[in-house]
Formats: sequence, structure tokens, C-alpha cells
Amino acid sequence: MPYILDVDGVICRGSKPIVEGVKAVKLLIDRGEKFVFVSNNSTRSRRMLLERFRSFGLDVSEDKIIVATYATSIYLKKRYGKLKIFTTGEKGLIDELKLAGHEIVDYEDAECLVVASNRNLDYNLMTKALRCCMKTDIYVATNPDKIFPGWDGPIPGTGMIIGALYWMTSRMPTVVGKPSEIIMREAIERLGVKEEEVVVVGDQIEVDVVAGKKLGCKTALVLSGVTKQESLKDLSEKPDIIAKDLFQLVHELL
Amino acid sequence: MPYILDVDGVICRGSKPIVEGVKAVKLLIDRGEKFVFVSNNSTRSRRMLLERFRSFGLDVSEDKIIVATYATSIYLKKRYGKLKIFTTGEKGLIDELKLAGHEIVDYEDAECLVVASNRNLDYNLMTKALRCCMKTDIYVATNPDKIFPGWDGPIPGTGMIIGALYWMTSRMPTVVGKPSEIIMREAIERLGVKEEEVVVVGDQIEVDVVAGKKLGCKTALVLSGVTKQESLKDLSEKPDIIAKDLFQLVHELL
Repeated sequence: MPYILDVDGVICRGSKPIVEGVKAVKLLIDRGEKFVFVSNNSTRSRRMLLERFRSFGLDVSEDKIIVATYATSIYLKKRYGKLKIFTTGEKGLIDELKLAGHEIVDYEDAECLVVASNRNLDYNLMTKALRCCMKTDIYVATNPDKIFPGWDGPIPGTGMIIGALYWMTSRMPTVVGKPSEIIMREAIERLGVKEEEVVVVGDQIEVDVVAGKKLGCKTALVLSGVTKQESLKDLSEKPDIIAKDLFQLVHELL
Repeated sequence: MPYILDVDGVICRGSKPIVEGVKAVKLLIDRGEKFVFVSNNSTRSRRMLLERFRSFGLDVSEDKIIVATYATSIYLKKRYGKLKIFTTGEKGLIDELKLAGHEIVDYEDAECLVVASNRNLDYNLMTKALRCCMKTDIYVATNPDKIFPGWDGPIPGTGMIIGALYWMTSRMPTVVGKPSEIIMREAIERLGVKEEEVVVVGDQIEVDVVAGKKLGCKTALVLSGVTKQESLKDLSEKPDIIAKDLFQLVHELL
């Protein structure tokens, strides 16, 4: 059975592996199952994610990784060709945008604004993003996530910048990351199967389960990330399957 | 006739005086007219504004200045007493909060979040503001302004932070600055007159004219700031008087 697998909360928590997640992926590889990782991470390139996976002892090929940085880069390329882009994002995004053939420019010369999280965000960067947002025709965001769980508490995601710009300009971006269909369609295409054959696995209802349901996929929630056992009674959408972790899930489905 | 006078766009543009505005205030002083300045500036204390006025050759007393930093500090003091406050703001705001008897603390210890513009804003400060917003009962903003005209283009105001936090937490602050009644009631009280006797003067419809109308004051728009002659046909609210600058206005009303 083909899988679309979330990364954070399923395979790892930040730089720390989730043992059952890693074990499950190894099992999928051994059994020759089709799968692709789909992550809303907006600061890492495919290469950075591959290196992280290797540090967990996981050896997967680059074509199995669709991260929001990469998905945004190829979405823009397919739809508009090569663009002059101003981005709020970090090196991982800039690397992917350049790999797709785009040119990174300052806001005055941009024909496209790409919004993404940046841990070095400051007033100057927000000023440039504001001015860019007021003039460019094309405006996209890598992902819509508002808040992430940091190691010592909640931290702002890309959604913070989307919200700030919306407040100032009344403009909303095209969002590439989950639950947008843009990144999900890319994943289905990569798998080369029909939507209804796929299981979408993730740790968040609003992100992973909603994304899967939109496309008519099967959906599975794992409890190794942000969603906990005690919040299961209040779920806004019901996944088809709920499992403790990816290993338990894969075991049930094999 | 008692006046409530906006500062930026009426008396000065940033640190540069508007000659007609300065001349008009001198005329009001000479004639013994009652007036008070009401400014949405969220980074300057009364003392900083006084120093700016002195650099224009204007000698006014501190009790004639109600700036959003000060208005926020005394609003909180009158309503809640002395508070432990975490603020996103700059030194000018911190000075006024301390003068009113509040204590400035980190977000973990705060019982109140005060949001205000900060040109040194960064990801760390936004993270603290987010965490504070998720826990404090009291949440206020010095002013609602979304965008300001900077010397080389638009720059984000306090509203950017309000929008970002609203997007992440669905929470809106109590706003002190114009067009809020909070700062306007303070000004009316300071003048010691009835609302309908007062002329509220400013360069922005949504800020100054709306604030004046809410209280039943007379309203005057001057064209020495952000509102230009050519946009007069599209005004969302009609002021009672429109004048080129404060000097022309005062001359007509004397």
C-alpha cells in the first residue's frame, strides 16, 4: 500500500529520531512498499532532510522527499517559469529556489514574493516583505503553519508572517504546504498511483488528515507527535485509522 | 476654541518640522487657547516628544502631551493598578510604563502584555510575545496603526504585531491609541471642556477624524500629512473642516 508520510512527529521530533518511526520506514523499504515523505518544513532543503535521515540510519533517495521548500520551488517553476524572487526564508529554501532555476533578488526587483519562516527574522526583513507584498503579482507561502512546538514552548511558524502581511495589506498568498492540494498533488504524481490507494499519515488533524481527505486518500493519525490520546474525543475530522506510532500502523496495514 | 492636535503630519514629519504647524501652535500659545497634543506614536515618551518640539523652537509643557506610550501606561494604572508587564516596545514606552509605577518583566512573569512597535523586533521577541499572549489576562496595544510612511517607503507599525498575534492566537488587544476612545477621553479630561466644544485636528481620516466623530467633537483634516488633495473625493468619513495646514485652519477658526 502506497504511503504519504509526514516527517515531524512521525519520523522525528526536530533533530531527534522517533525510534518506531525509523523502524517502520526500514520495514517499508525492506518490503519494497511505495512511499514518499511530505513535510511542511519551510527552512530545510531536501538535502538537509536527507542528511537528517542519514543521521537516524535511514538511507532514502532524494526523489522520496517532497518538502515545502522544494514543492514551492517547482510549483513556481511549472506555473510561471523561472522567476525573480524575494523571500523571507532561510538558506534551505533559497537553495531549493536556486536549484529550480529561480533568481534571488532584493524586493525592489522581485516579480514574486515567497514567504517562509526565518529564525533570523527582523524588522528590516518584515519591512522588505511588506513592500514586496504591495507590488508583486505573484505571492506564495511555503506552508500555512501558525505555531510550532519548540523545545521550550510554542514558536511562530510561517503563518505569523502571513498573518502580519494580511493585516497590513489585506493580501493572502497561494499556500503550497499541507493542507494545500498543491504539495499533495505533487506527492500523488510522484507515487504514480490513484488517490484512493494511498494512506496519508501524520500527527496533525488540521494539516495531514485534512490534506488527505481533500484528495480522497485514506488517512491515518499517529500519536507520536502533537496530537495526544486525551484530545482524541475532540477531533474536528475523523481519520480512518489511529495508531500509537508509525510502526504500529504499518504493522496493522501490512 | 479648544484643540486636540495630532503631531505627525500636522506639526512635523518624523524629525522635520512642518513650518505652518509650528507657527500655528505658537499662535495658539500667544492667544492663550487651550490645546493638547494626542499622538499615536508608540516608541517615544512625553520627554522625547518635548525634546523634539524644543528642537522646532516650540516650548510646551509636559501636561499638553498625550502620546500613546503615556496614555497606555496611565490607562493600565487607573484600571488595574501597578502591573508586571512584558512589552514588545522600545525605550520610550518602557520609560513611561516605569514612570506610571509598572514593573517591566520577562514574559514568564508577566500579568500583562503591552504590544507596541519596535524597530529592533526579531524572531525571539515575537516568540516571547506569542507565549505571553497565550497566558496573560491583560493584553493591550498602544495603537492600531498598520503601516507608517517611512523616509524611503512604507514601514510596519504596531498593527503588524497585532495582526501576527491575532493570526496565531485569535486574540485581539484593547487598543489605547486613536481612533480608540481611551486616549481621546484622556485628552478631553485634560482639556476640562465638553466634547462638542473641541476641534480634533489630524492628517488621517481613519485615525483622527473617526476618533473625533466618535466623541461628538468637531473634526478637521489638514493636508500637510498622508492625506492628499487628490484623495479628498474618496473620503470614507467627511470632516467638518478641511484645511491646507494647521496655520490655515487656526486662522479660519480664530
